Amino acid sequence: MKAGRGPVVKFTEASKPIPKIKASRVLAVLDFTLRVVAVLGTLASAVAMGTSRETLPFATRFIRFRARYKDLPTLTFFVMTNSIVCAYLVLSLPVSVVHMIWTAAVNSRIILIISDTVMMGLVTAGASAATAIVYLAHYGNPSTNWFAFCQQFNSFCGRISGSLIGSFIAITVLLLLIIMSSVAISRR
Amino acid sequence: MKAGRGPVVKFTEASKPIPKIKASRVLAVLDFTLRVVAVLGTLASAVAMGTSRETLPFATRFIRFRARYKDLPTLTFFVMTNSIVCAYLVLSLPVSVVHMIWTAAVNSRIILIISDTVMMGLVTAGASAATAIVYLAHYGNPSTNWFAFCQQFNSFCGRISGSLIGSFIAITVLLLLIIMSSVAISRR
Repeated sequence: MKAGRGPVVKFTEASKPIPKIKASRVLAVLDFTLRVVAVLGTLASAVAMGTSRETLPFATRFIRFRARYKDLPTLTFFVMTNSIVCAYLVLSLPVSVVHMIWTAAVNSRIILIISDTVMMGLVTAGASAATAIVYLAHYGNPSTNWFAFCQQFNSFCGRISGSLIGSFIAITVLLLLIIMSSVAISRR
Repeated sequence: MKAGRGPVVKFTEASKPIPKIKASRVLAVLDFTLRVVAVLGTLASAVAMGTSRETLPFATRFIRFRARYKDLPTLTFFVMTNSIVCAYLVLSLPVSVVHMIWTAAVNSRIILIISDTVMMGLVTAGASAATAIVYLAHYGNPSTNWFAFCQQFNSFCGRISGSLIGSFIAITVLLLLIIMSSVAISRR
């Protein structure tokens, strides 16, 4: 072992830092790409939910004429959280570009981990609260006499269910971003 | 600058590592304490929600005799997520103890960050979905004809509202743990 010590040291000093920087740059590019995906996901969710409305051509004593996302406070919360997280992700894109160039950055990565975690919590809260309400809209709850309204508002229900997808993609992406940032910090 | 180079090097070599290790140990002890707090929070939430039931002494055509958390699938999900996160936090306590002794550990910290983030997502999903349902139970929704049942089931509603507190404490604690772990990794 001792005889081979010289060349081994030479190897680690000369060749190792280059792939390390290369791997960090690949991680930074992946970080940027994932952020763009999450921006599109949250934007699509917010727009799809925010523009969901349906007016029925008929009316009975129990069914109202119109369904909008504003009728349910939880869906308003969903639109708000997705808009906030989308705005944050757009603002984080320049930081991600800086990480591509300056791969050794640590403090900015820690700030990104913290804010990514907060934003992941926010979008998870919005998405899961909305999912609970969308579930009720589809299946209702006989124990509490909460009736499903999806039989009547077919198109509205399809829209609010579909709008959850973008949000769940954003949650997955933010989780991946947090994992990648912590790996990038540990690789310094 | 060059004249003072000797003593400066001596200072960094001799005295700096000691407060660094000390600070890491303080962070590790704080990590353990916060995990215990989160264990108690999720346990209290799961138990408070899991044991909530109320039987009314009277009955009308619309009000059912009994309210249990199992009547609402979202509250069952809340109990499940809190139990899972509580179990995970108990299992993570030994790792936290290892970090107190071996402050330079990196790989185990990264695994903790990843699993803490997943668990934060899980408990946030459970808590916010349950909050959406508890909000409906308190205030109902006139647009969808979902009636508030908290006028009838006072004690049940108080219990399910209170059980959310432990869960939100656990979310805050997990957020702090993720921040502390990333700071600890960057301090190496």
